[in-house]
Amino acid sequence: MKKVAVILSGCGFYDGSEIQESVLSLLAIEQAGASWHCFAPDEEQFHVINHHAGEESGDTRNALQEAARICRGDIAPISTLNPDDFDALLLPGGFGVAKNLSDFANTGVSMSIQEDVLRVCKAFASAEKPAGYICISPILIPKVYGPGAKGTIGTDPETAAAFNAMGGEHVNCPVDDFVLDQSRRLLSTPAYMLATSVSEAASGINKLVDKLVDMA
Amino acid sequence: MKKVAVILSGCGFYDGSEIQESVLSLLAIEQAGASWHCFAPDEEQFHVINHHAGEESGDTRNALQEAARICRGDIAPISTLNPDDFDALLLPGGFGVAKNLSDFANTGVSMSIQEDVLRVCKAFASAEKPAGYICISPILIPKVYGPGAKGTIGTDPETAAAFNAMGGEHVNCPVDDFVLDQSRRLLSTPAYMLATSVSEAASGINKLVDKLVDMA
Repeated sequence: MKKVAVILSGCGFYDGSEIQESVLSLLAIEQAGASWHCFAPDEEQFHVINHHAGEESGDTRNALQEAARICRGDIAPISTLNPDDFDALLLPGGFGVAKNLSDFANTGVSMSIQEDVLRVCKAFASAEKPAGYICISPILIPKVYGPGAKGTIGTDPETAAAFNAMGGEHVNCPVDDFVLDQSRRLLSTPAYMLATSVSEAASGINKLVDKLVDMA
Repeated sequence: MKKVAVILSGCGFYDGSEIQESVLSLLAIEQAGASWHCFAPDEEQFHVINHHAGEESGDTRNALQEAARICRGDIAPISTLNPDDFDALLLPGGFGVAKNLSDFANTGVSMSIQEDVLRVCKAFASAEKPAGYICISPILIPKVYGPGAKGTIGTDPETAAAFNAMGGEHVNCPVDDFVLDQSRRLLSTPAYMLATSVSEAASGINKLVDKLVDMA
């Protein structure tokens, strides 16, 4: 059975992983006949947002402990992730990608990527193992794959411009499709960068994951 | 379009709503051609569990604010839920049902149900509008529907005995099916009382929600 490593960043789209995208990803991996294996940084989140009010709270939370909620505790620190053990990589979205896996939310195009996340993503890239980036996760692509890597964050001009400014080649994409950079074995889909419902997010994620597992 | 009210109880199966069941429920409602409308008690959770370690933390969290993570903030306090506005009711599982929507986790068969949850569930029952209870949620059924109501929590003997002790009529059920109490327009499915994967949980939830929306 093909094994897909999944990197989460917390639990909730304002400050961690987008929950719906994460669950849809795990379901799609199973339905494609592969197994999922979740990881997250064992680190304090950048901050915590009250998702009802949309306002920052004073709490502190750990990204690994929160991400564990999504996958019922079946998760490990990303520091323990050995890319040799897996056939493919998948990153759901959520602001946690821009706040906990990287600092894009604060530093924009001069962003840096969390050390273990960068190590893992680069290892899959250099081993030419397929990788799928969902929603805002593709913002990591230029720093991981270097100049010319193709990806999509949907159609948002500002985020697309940042993607290109970092050396990527942004491709507009509708919510129910994905972009494939064939030479890099690299896939991306907009999901909640564009989706207005769970089923819209699922449409693109399902196609991406099917292709990801097929390529693995 | 038929409208389904969904009652959540937090975010995470140890102390709130089972996240996967909740997302699968929202997806299934959309795919059945209906719309979902989430509600939760605007109250402090019974407690907070670190889902990585499986141990209680000293934190306090609000069930509504945490449930909002699952549905991207599209949620309202259950005190505002008017059953007249909806065609069907759905309760995903998670220990939050036994800790925040009721006190079953602590008091067992002498449990009481949170005031607004009881009001809403009874209103759907007396209006003969269809209602679906997932995972551990069916433990509420005997107190809502009274003696003889049929439901399932899977095959766990202890929980089934509690269901019967409160006046219900427990029916064993596999994970990929649901139990229908036709005269009460009442459905239940085991989901993570039995499921060992996201797709197993989805199999029963999808069937239940299809029937729920069909009956609405």
